[in-house]
Amino acid sequence: MSGKALVTLDDAETRDLLGTARVGHIAYESSRGVDITPVNFRLSGDMIYIRTVEAGTLAELAPGPEQVAFLVTYLDRLAQTGWSVKVRGTIRAVGDADLPDVDPEPWVGFPGTVLLGLAIEELTGRRVA
Amino acid sequence: MSGKALVTLDDAETRDLLGTARVGHIAYESSRGVDITPVNFRLSGDMIYIRTVEAGTLAELAPGPEQVAFLVTYLDRLAQTGWSVKVRGTIRAVGDADLPDVDPEPWVGFPGTVLLGLAIEELTGRRVA
Repeated sequence: MSGKALVTLDDAETRDLLGTARVGHIAYESSRGVDITPVNFRLSGDMIYIRTVEAGTLAELAPGPEQVAFLVTYLDRLAQTGWSVKVRGTIRAVGDADLPDVDPEPWVGFPGTVLLGLAIEELTGRRVA
Repeated sequence: MSGKALVTLDDAETRDLLGTARVGHIAYESSRGVDITPVNFRLSGDMIYIRTVEAGTLAELAPGPEQVAFLVTYLDRLAQTGWSVKVRGTIRAVGDADLPDVDPEPWVGFPGTVLLGLAIEELTGRRVA
């Protein structure tokens, strides 16, 4: 993407992009060291809701709050453009009653899942164009 | 993706998928806490080559070796299938002379870049089908 410019998005556009996305990647400290997991999610207010399987290392964060980084990336390889939104914040398990809207499905239909809430503390968006 | 099954891929298939991919996400410890960055990369042997901009937190890992997690995810939302390959290993700056093949371009054409080499210590692949 040489010659392309990186543009910082304003808060409104950043939040809009995050609200339309459904899949992100979360980075966190696990018992196995720094780890990364793709997740389905839903944004509501200043909270990102993630439902993860109990068997994965992400579920270790349930007792929280734990500091994490969360990224949504959209790439158009043909047009060589894209955008990314990064969230920093703290995550912990939340009750189903906290979930305001549609439930984010986990990747795979395991019987045991944990609903996590990531409280957004910092939100930044960038576009390559 | 309820009802879908998660299948562990064998080593050969995992390595093939990683070799054809060009974009991944890397999770690491930065001066700002746990962080995540999308990167272009190239696989060669047991090394993943990443060229990143000097201005980013990822370049902080240059002195290395630092433990990181790296993930490539492919999703087909229409077919509700996908695969992911996760790498654990240590990263540090490498010289251009170490680069055997095509140079991985950074996201944006900044003048200053750092070439990092991620030595693969653990490689796992999974498919949702």
